[in-house]
Amino acid sequence: MRVFIAGIDGYLGWALAHYLTQHGHEVAGADQLLRRDWVAETGSVSAIPIASRDDRVAAFENEFGKSLDFRVGDLTDYDFVNSFFREFQPESIVHLAQMPSAPDSMQSQKHAVWTQCNNITTNLNILYAIHEVVPDAHLVKLGTVGEYGQPNIDIPEGFFDVEYNGRKDKLWFPRNAGSWYHQSKVHDSHNTWFASKIWGLRATDIMQGVVFGTQFPNMPKNPQLRTRLDFDQSFGTAINRFCAQAAIGHPLTLYGSGTMTRAFLPLRDSMRCLTLAIENPAENSEFRVFNQFAESYSIIDLAQTVQEVGNELGLNVEIRHYDNPRVEREQHYYNPIRERLDALGYEPSIAVRSEIRIMLDDLKQHTDRIEDKRHLLIPDIRWDGSQQRSAEIQVSEIVH
Amino acid sequence: MRVFIAGIDGYLGWALAHYLTQHGHEVAGADQLLRRDWVAETGSVSAIPIASRDDRVAAFENEFGKSLDFRVGDLTDYDFVNSFFREFQPESIVHLAQMPSAPDSMQSQKHAVWTQCNNITTNLNILYAIHEVVPDAHLVKLGTVGEYGQPNIDIPEGFFDVEYNGRKDKLWFPRNAGSWYHQSKVHDSHNTWFASKIWGLRATDIMQGVVFGTQFPNMPKNPQLRTRLDFDQSFGTAINRFCAQAAIGHPLTLYGSGTMTRAFLPLRDSMRCLTLAIENPAENSEFRVFNQFAESYSIIDLAQTVQEVGNELGLNVEIRHYDNPRVEREQHYYNPIRERLDALGYEPSIAVRSEIRIMLDDLKQHTDRIEDKRHLLIPDIRWDGSQQRSAEIQVSEIVH
Repeated sequence: MRVFIAGIDGYLGWALAHYLTQHGHEVAGADQLLRRDWVAETGSVSAIPIASRDDRVAAFENEFGKSLDFRVGDLTDYDFVNSFFREFQPESIVHLAQMPSAPDSMQSQKHAVWTQCNNITTNLNILYAIHEVVPDAHLVKLGTVGEYGQPNIDIPEGFFDVEYNGRKDKLWFPRNAGSWYHQSKVHDSHNTWFASKIWGLRATDIMQGVVFGTQFPNMPKNPQLRTRLDFDQSFGTAINRFCAQAAIGHPLTLYGSGTMTRAFLPLRDSMRCLTLAIENPAENSEFRVFNQFAESYSIIDLAQTVQEVGNELGLNVEIRHYDNPRVEREQHYYNPIRERLDALGYEPSIAVRSEIRIMLDDLKQHTDRIEDKRHLLIPDIRWDGSQQRSAEIQVSEIVH
Repeated sequence: MRVFIAGIDGYLGWALAHYLTQHGHEVAGADQLLRRDWVAETGSVSAIPIASRDDRVAAFENEFGKSLDFRVGDLTDYDFVNSFFREFQPESIVHLAQMPSAPDSMQSQKHAVWTQCNNITTNLNILYAIHEVVPDAHLVKLGTVGEYGQPNIDIPEGFFDVEYNGRKDKLWFPRNAGSWYHQSKVHDSHNTWFASKIWGLRATDIMQGVVFGTQFPNMPKNPQLRTRLDFDQSFGTAINRFCAQAAIGHPLTLYGSGTMTRAFLPLRDSMRCLTLAIENPAENSEFRVFNQFAESYSIIDLAQTVQEVGNELGLNVEIRHYDNPRVEREQHYYNPIRERLDALGYEPSIAVRSEIRIMLDDLKQHTDRIEDKRHLLIPDIRWDGSQQRSAEIQVSEIVH
């Protein structure tokens, strides 16, 4: 299948280019390489060294013996999207091209506006280009399970049956996102659902959990082909950040009590699930929502798991609590339902402990890169707009 | 109270400046005068002649014996918003400054992107300026009852109690809007709710029905102070468009069967309700939703009412059906609940027939302006992106 990857230079996008190629698909993609700039703006780097765009393409072509059409370009430029689609004629479009960081979006008015306009424009352009150029193509759009927030009821896959004042309907499950970035994904989900209704567009909206890990099956050995792994406060998500901290003996930075629960999945499972969605496309006019994750964990449980595995590997891992820079409920019910991916054959792959061990082994070879950024490991981007480093707090102050 | 009106040059904004001044409030406002440009782009004009910004301000100052700080400026420019708020120190902000047309937003990729980025940026800027400059001020944000779509259950005021899989929560009522413009209002509602949660912002989100009419109580007699009335396919909403058509003996253009039901209110009621919201502000951290309308009607019932009143006035009014350029359900349940404004003292003012009679009397004095645009009265902006004039259809084809 011809698959277009929007955001091919990213953590998921670059890995997916390999995974899909190994599974017999023809891949092309676009990226403006902004993730590299954003992480540099935070003062940080990818813990795993990554090659330049040109070296990536050369190594890819060498590895697979086929060319890779990876264009550096701006997906908010409609002509760029439209003409690329006309040339490549994708049958499937995976949309991973977004500013994906909650803290980055919360820094200032400018970051909030930029995040929302950038993400919405990119998504609208992809919707219009599908409608105008490849109306039969299937859109696999990356959303986030964070769009749902923390409702006190189960989280269905996108829609639910409601009875209210004696009447019934199947309704959109209300979204309640926790940052300007997460809100932008909510807006994209609404826009995509609407496009599907008015144009008959085929779309799968992936409500993905937090991805962690450095590897996926049959990953090429060439270091030029490695995908990135971020550990800074903006682009480093929970487990990845903890593992990078553990690798250099920095205390794991737990926000607040750490009792917030989230859904997670390893990078390898993300690749598997996205491929299942691509290979089993939605019908014409079908807008379907997949809750994509392996398991839910509280953040403190994950930190303790990283601590245990790290200590087994001879690292001396401490956990410290910091006052939470975010506005979020720390005690809450959390139960997203996952049925559709299971029906397509998804089974969570390996245990979180094994994945953490693999990641720590990987990161131990790059401790110099993380050590060099040690001064950045305490968060200072706050949801109230102030920029104040989180202070350490005592566990006794925490209501578990 | 010091009230800032974002969008002070518009249909509602200009009327509200007078209404609030008459009720003892101090008003200032901003507008980029874009509505004038958009209507000109459709090739049309306001049926009621309106004065330039400078003549409006001069006539206002003459009428009320006080100055009016009405600045021409771009609310997507954060410095403009922030500095205006710093100078004026508003206690209440009424946000009416949006690209408000569904058909306009549906014309092309460019219009879709522009509408959403413009509306979202303006709203985010207002949220940030409140947070950073006047954190105790109350935001009265104009949404639309169209955000809810056409659910098969009652439409509560923003939130509802849900039981699902044996657990209960009070949830955001899911929005299901029918155009890129309406989607932009959904995005704004989500963003405003979020701002209220993280910053304690006080906000009232008005889910307003379709406004019609030309007058409000104690409206100044000076014609330089009249507010606009649009009748083109993009900015002319149902009753206003029908009355303008009736005034020149053009058949009323009913889309499809005309059996779609919508909520409506006269301009005078919109003024009254907005003033009630302003004078009874939300509490700190309170985000409340008002469903603001007088009554619900099917479009065909309204057309028939305009026909009857028009014929009483000696106009020879015909109704014709045209194939519907929009994608919408024509047969549906519709029951928005209105309780909060009633609790504040709102009672729908006068009957729709009397308001239509007043409007027709008003418009009969400007038939030359409408007659001149007769060639624009059949819609050609379609939800599928094509630009094809709607064809007349026979009533026999219509399922009532």
